[in-house]
Amino acid sequence: MSNYKIEIQYDGTRYKGWQILSNNDNTIQGKITEAISKITGEEVQVIGSGRTDAGVHAMGQVANFHLTNTKIKDSVSFLNDLNNILPDDIAVISVNKVDGRFHARFSAVSKTYRYRIHYSKIPNVFERRFVYTYTNTPIDVEKMKDAATYFIGEKDFKSFCNNPKFTKSSVRTITNIDITKTDSEIIIDYTGDGFLKGMVRAITGTLIEVATGQKTASEIPSILESQSRENAGYTAPACGLCLMEVRYK
Amino acid sequence: MSNYKIEIQYDGTRYKGWQILSNNDNTIQGKITEAISKITGEEVQVIGSGRTDAGVHAMGQVANFHLTNTKIKDSVSFLNDLNNILPDDIAVISVNKVDGRFHARFSAVSKTYRYRIHYSKIPNVFERRFVYTYTNTPIDVEKMKDAATYFIGEKDFKSFCNNPKFTKSSVRTITNIDITKTDSEIIIDYTGDGFLKGMVRAITGTLIEVATGQKTASEIPSILESQSRENAGYTAPACGLCLMEVRYK
Repeated sequence: MSNYKIEIQYDGTRYKGWQILSNNDNTIQGKITEAISKITGEEVQVIGSGRTDAGVHAMGQVANFHLTNTKIKDSVSFLNDLNNILPDDIAVISVNKVDGRFHARFSAVSKTYRYRIHYSKIPNVFERRFVYTYTNTPIDVEKMKDAATYFIGEKDFKSFCNNPKFTKSSVRTITNIDITKTDSEIIIDYTGDGFLKGMVRAITGTLIEVATGQKTASEIPSILESQSRENAGYTAPACGLCLMEVRYK
Repeated sequence: MSNYKIEIQYDGTRYKGWQILSNNDNTIQGKITEAISKITGEEVQVIGSGRTDAGVHAMGQVANFHLTNTKIKDSVSFLNDLNNILPDDIAVISVNKVDGRFHARFSAVSKTYRYRIHYSKIPNVFERRFVYTYTNTPIDVEKMKDAATYFIGEKDFKSFCNNPKFTKSSVRTITNIDITKTDSEIIIDYTGDGFLKGMVRAITGTLIEVATGQKTASEIPSILESQSRENAGYTAPACGLCLMEVRYK
């Protein structure tokens, strides 16, 4: 039995997210599983580093899968076969044989997500699927940077989790939130050991509310303490979010 | 009567090109004309620097139009109104009052078109609409650069014109063809005083045929002399082409 690690890129616009759904709906994991099974003739389980939601993109999603009988001898032709089968908005960009114990989710030590807010009133026609266009109210980036500092460190992020049935630990560590302003966009890079369902989008919505004067940064500690999703800001739309990188030991 | 110059960007994927068609079909010129008429209440004629074909994109298309009664006092709010009406794959990025004699087509002194060939077998999921994916045969960029030199200068490009009914002068001057190779793409920038219908795509197809060994560079002078479209290479697909810039005195 061999264990393979793959890196995946996708434009998530038309998918119902990463995870295979019971009704065989349009998912990234579903498309990749189908393609690998078709090439190898084996039933495979494709384990992602995490579930991206419907409409979320990835530059560097990572997954692994085991093959019992097949051995991938030529990784270039395996990638070609895979990308020929996959729809043109999903690409597998690398494949590597890894240690049998490697697990795309459990072995991950950190992840970076990028959220792009297009604030210019001049639309970006080429990147429109990959940004959240927010032009109603001016965004005060200094206020946003100040608010972001309250999220750094090991914290219970239950107030920023979109899954009301979540019963496991909601403690996560965010090591970095980098905010960059360009002529037309505000780019927020979140790095941490892991993120709850909807967490990056809920933090982004909260940062936008602070940066537009609907909330103040000093409220954030009490929002975190309240452990109640309704106290945090709104969920920023999926289209602006992209999983950039997953890091392993 | 005031004359206004606008700069336009578009993702041409779902349009039948720049020019308004008699059957009121989906065109860029049509969409912009409608939007300006809606805002000003005037019937306008939007004059483009040139017609881009169905599926061709623009980063810097230029057009002008005259208004009889309306004066655009606040260009920012005019742009906002315009972009709110326009579909999300067309954006007007600037508007300026210009001399009455300014004509987007006749006043243009040079244009740059970019053609992007994605040669890597790993698809680019994010830019897939803006590149021509060509992975069948390796492309020899040195051969392509050599072939490109034969197109530089003032020449009769009739063999590279897709309009068989074209009766005006087909003499044009190409001042520059810059070819850049990246990890995944070959980018060809064409600069000249003007381009015939389908000319950039026919030259690109010919360059690809030379770069893949189907033609030799030394055949190009006789192809030009023959004044026959069938002697030149194939028409590279529209999706890879983008009008980058139009220059005026």
